[in-house]
Amino acid sequence: MAAARRILVINPNSNPEVTEGFSQALAPLRLAGGPEIECVTLAEGPFETQAHVEQVTLPLLGLILARPDAGAYVIACYSDPGLQLCREATTKPVFGIQESGMLAALSRGDRVGVIALGPASVARHLRYLRQLGLTERLAGERPLNLSVAESERPEAFDRLAEVGRELRDIDGADVLVLGCAGMARHRQRLEAALGLPVVDPTQAATAGAFAAVLLG
Amino acid sequence: MAAARRILVINPNSNPEVTEGFSQALAPLRLAGGPEIECVTLAEGPFETQAHVEQVTLPLLGLILARPDAGAYVIACYSDPGLQLCREATTKPVFGIQESGMLAALSRGDRVGVIALGPASVARHLRYLRQLGLTERLAGERPLNLSVAESERPEAFDRLAEVGRELRDIDGADVLVLGCAGMARHRQRLEAALGLPVVDPTQAATAGAFAAVLLG
Amino acid sequence: MAAARRILVINPNSNPEVTEGFSQALAPLRLAGGPEIECVTLAEGPFETQAHVEQVTLPLLGLILARPDAGAYVIACYSDPGLQLCREATTKPVFGIQESGMLAALSRGDRVGVIALGPASVARHLRYLRQLGLTERLAGERPLNLSVAESERPEAFDRLAEVGRELRDIDGADVLVLGCAGMARHRQRLEAALGLPVVDPTQAATAGAFAAVLLG
Amino acid sequence: MAAARRILVINPNSNPEVTEGFSQALAPLRLAGGPEIECVTLAEGPFETQAHVEQVTLPLLGLILARPDAGAYVIACYSDPGLQLCREATTKPVFGIQESGMLAALSRGDRVGVIALGPASVARHLRYLRQLGLTERLAGERPLNLSVAESERPEAFDRLAEVGRELRDIDGADVLVLGCAGMARHRQRLEAALGLPVVDPTQAATAGAFAAVLLG
Amino acid sequence: MAAARRILVINPNSNPEVTEGFSQALAPLRLAGGPEIECVTLAEGPFETQAHVEQVTLPLLGLILARPDAGAYVIACYSDPGLQLCREATTKPVFGIQESGMLAALSRGDRVGVIALGPASVARHLRYLRQLGLTERLAGERPLNLSVAESERPEAFDRLAEVGRELRDIDGADVLVLGCAGMARHRQRLEAALGLPVVDPTQAATAGAFAAVLLG
Amino acid sequence: MAAARRILVINPNSNPEVTEGFSQALAPLRLAGGPEIECVTLAEGPFETQAHVEQVTLPLLGLILARPDAGAYVIACYSDPGLQLCREATTKPVFGIQESGMLAALSRGDRVGVIALGPASVARHLRYLRQLGLTERLAGERPLNLSVAESERPEAFDRLAEVGRELRDIDGADVLVLGCAGMARHRQRLEAALGLPVVDPTQAATAGAFAAVLLG
Repeated sequence: MAAARRILVINPNSNPEVTEGFSQALAPLRLAGGPEIECVTLAEGPFETQAHVEQVTLPLLGLILARPDAGAYVIACYSDPGLQLCREATTKPVFGIQESGMLAALSRGDRVGVIALGPASVARHLRYLRQLGLTERLAGERPLNLSVAESERPEAFDRLAEVGRELRDIDGADVLVLGCAGMARHRQRLEAALGLPVVDPTQAATAGAFAAVLLG
Repeated sequence: MAAARRILVINPNSNPEVTEGFSQALAPLRLAGGPEIECVTLAEGPFETQAHVEQVTLPLLGLILARPDAGAYVIACYSDPGLQLCREATTKPVFGIQESGMLAALSRGDRVGVIALGPASVARHLRYLRQLGLTERLAGERPLNLSVAESERPEAFDRLAEVGRELRDIDGADVLVLGCAGMARHRQRLEAALGLPVVDPTQAATAGAFAAVLLG
Repeated sequence: MAAARRILVINPNSNPEVTEGFSQALAPLRLAGGPEIECVTLAEGPFETQAHVEQVTLPLLGLILARPDAGAYVIACYSDPGLQLCREATTKPVFGIQESGMLAALSRGDRVGVIALGPASVARHLRYLRQLGLTERLAGERPLNLSVAESERPEAFDRLAEVGRELRDIDGADVLVLGCAGMARHRQRLEAALGLPVVDPTQAATAGAFAAVLLG
Repeated sequence: MAAARRILVINPNSNPEVTEGFSQALAPLRLAGGPEIECVTLAEGPFETQAHVEQVTLPLLGLILARPDAGAYVIACYSDPGLQLCREATTKPVFGIQESGMLAALSRGDRVGVIALGPASVARHLRYLRQLGLTERLAGERPLNLSVAESERPEAFDRLAEVGRELRDIDGADVLVLGCAGMARHRQRLEAALGLPVVDPTQAATAGAFAAVLLG
Repeated sequence: MAAARRILVINPNSNPEVTEGFSQALAPLRLAGGPEIECVTLAEGPFETQAHVEQVTLPLLGLILARPDAGAYVIACYSDPGLQLCREATTKPVFGIQESGMLAALSRGDRVGVIALGPASVARHLRYLRQLGLTERLAGERPLNLSVAESERPEAFDRLAEVGRELRDIDGADVLVLGCAGMARHRQRLEAALGLPVVDPTQAATAGAFAAVLLG
Repeated sequence: MAAARRILVINPNSNPEVTEGFSQALAPLRLAGGPEIECVTLAEGPFETQAHVEQVTLPLLGLILARPDAGAYVIACYSDPGLQLCREATTKPVFGIQESGMLAALSRGDRVGVIALGPASVARHLRYLRQLGLTERLAGERPLNLSVAESERPEAFDRLAEVGRELRDIDGADVLVLGCAGMARHRQRLEAALGLPVVDPTQAATAGAFAAVLLG
């Protein structure tokens, strides 16, 4: 019963700095009487998930089945790898961060801009947004042309701000989503710099899991 | 600062039983170190909001402007009255329950079924879903043919279950949304009876406000 | 019976120059045996409607209910305030000028360009076009960055022509709509300057009312 | 100049009863100081246009080019044959009755039901509605299984009412369009019987031409 | 060079009867001077692919990379497993049978009906059709409630015909797609029984590969 | 029976160089045991079809009815003139090159760019893509500003490459379609120059006819 209030947030790549980054961003959701939020790194994950999304699907499923002590799961890679597979394998709620990030953005603005890592991500995300049926609310998606590891560093901030301004001023976005779990640390500073709500998708998905666990 | 962690959940109709009903449903979100959740009834509201949505718009705005001690607001009428107006009048997040209920449902199933009060609600909601750009994920919406006050009573459960089954078995919904703040008390029992996730939109919107307040 | 052939065209803002402007534009629809076209200014309206759309909803309804001598009503503010509310309150046809302007444009060209007052209008109109289900025919909407009062003056013409050319040459519009009742006086000159049909939405809505009154 | 105020309403089939039927329905638009409305039958037209739409395209164009004395043209066959061709050949407005009928319906209700002659018409119209970008507002289209000539007769009324009721009660239409120029005479009686606005598309297109001629 | 004219058609499940079934259906595409068509069974595949789509993704990629002697590849499972992954890994064309089957159907009819194995397939395919952007042409999809192996047997024909008739007569489909590679043997008989074009998706995808190989 | 394996590819304009151009491009589909591919020029066709699409509809139908010895037909004008009419007049498959070109492109890339002759073509094609329900996959369409005859010449290549680069780099297309039967000879060179799949629509439609004839 206590176990059912645990949320497992899984980083499907094996870069622990990414896990550490989003774990810190989840600190405000760690409340005295609230669900436990445990962040784990997928041992079998590649160092960069973006080009290797399919490889992590079965290991992710294995991890979820091995952790019945959790009441909800978050797959913290923006490509939402294995999301449907995991949902079919458990009755507990499973959240993907692209899906949750986009849905959270839709209640904070009318037209969403997404900051992606590279052009291949942009194409993959657009296919997925069509699958989600959400393209009518997309203002645009633009690439940083950075790797996961690069995007996570403090010095990437200026590039994020530059791309965010293009999404706001050229594409007409009035809310932004960070298109990778690794960009979590830039959220608040970016929001201040651009004057728009900026959604960290791992926070959004974990907040969804948080509510699901509490509300049963 | 402490004030900024308060969430104001406003019932735009003047029926206190509705306010009491969703306040009880929000109990699990009241955590020791978490945001305070205050449920209020709009004094100027009509007893039934459905046919009088426009009348509550300006009083709602007045209430929100009169309560700067809150960090986020929830408008707990399924027609989302005054949502854009209030959003333009404050920089703090404002959540509407139809919008939040639908968005929450989209991460729990693929095709959403909505249980509405009456046929006029169905038509109004469909227009609004087009505005939200979410019609591609709607399985269907069906009316109970009950008033707000009637839908809130325990004996309405059988009718909710009947309509829910039609949404599931005829329309192909795999997740349901309760299309009125007054139906909150039926959620868990309905979920158990139908074997589908059932979203209470006031819970969904308040969970969104909860996360917004915590994550800043 | 004679009364039922009267069309009431209501300016929801209190600027009489706007009322006077569109009244002149409606002169060609005033025919010997045809419906009487009466243009009125909403006493309770703000001087600029754009940012105050919600305030005029109930006064508009009141005016319509107080004038059963009319056979059809036109709400002459491009945000179509109170349109649904008024439609639910009377069995007589009620026309909104954004809706009518867009629909009229769709029979004069394939892709519609809209000249708006400011960026906030653009965002509001886009939401509404989604509600109308007409986004697939929108080429673009661009702001003048002028107030209602400014847009109405003769010297605003050059700015309208500049924005109209961008809609035609960059966005690919082959028909334009004036996105405010106050721009009526520029229509014919703009049409001549750009070589495209230009729709004055108040004319379009009143023509719709005209037909509805005659055809019963 | 006087000539430019003439509207030519062309029946592309050679059945004069159809021309006579819609000419009578256009009587209320014939006003003292208003545009002259002239209804003509296309000599080269087949007796039934439905299955022969393509044959009338070039004769229609010929007729329009031979009548520069008109200020606007209406092509009164619900398949809108030759509409684009004629529009490219003249700078004067040309109206098609399917397009105009659907657009008129969109300002009288939210979801449109169409009464068609037969199943082949339904399929053809659906393709065309996709071209018009209007499918999101279609409640449904149902066939009478009657010919043009049969649908025009008084005794067809009961069948129109039956199909109209299905569109209203099963498909959820709140406004109807008569899917053939030949059904004009049933409009008012059907409106009374069903309690919904019923649009005669020839009236709608001619009203559009009427406004275009007057407003220049 | 000769090798580049080979088409590899891969059955991702390990049921050789399925491979044999579609290989026979591909016989007409085996022409003297044409591409060689080689049908293989994925050794690592499960006996039924439907519920195990994700498991075959990486083995499929391995097989494709191990067979550079082919000029084009067909993945003959209707869920199109690994299609994007394989496309990113080779510059040669890769065809998925759901995608190809739907696209082929769109040039043979206006509204497509799909015969699926079971309800879970229907839901998965609908998500995928949204990703493909093709939902507007879907008349409906209905399940046989049979396994892959069952659907392949001659005695399944009556059930296919029953479901096909529902798609034609209730949903309005004018072309059908067989929603599993295992149903290939029923195509011609079903076409004759229903009087509609019936698309075998493996044939459609292999025909696409055939053209791609020949046309370079 | 042998006759039923003949494919008739019809050039609806009377420019024999266009017919000769696409006939050469179809050479790889002429296989020993395969269908005979016969390319014919419509005697009644205008020299340029683009502005005269409607004129060829009935002559095309006449030609198809006069040639029952063919098993499938291709209408090789990118406006797909008379496609529905011919489909309704024969039970044999009829392919239009715009439809087939777009559908073929959808299995070679995610977002399609189209190279058109002129701005009027772009507008006409966009209307048609809405009819086909395929706009969500269109990256963009851009005009060469050349006639059919000019686009066919070797010296047009540089202009095609320029427009192709804009579609790829500005509009984000990852597959291109040649928007006229006359551009066939540029396909392979353009593919090499741009590094994207380039679809010749006449090849695509004839490949579809090829498969239809073989597969029965």
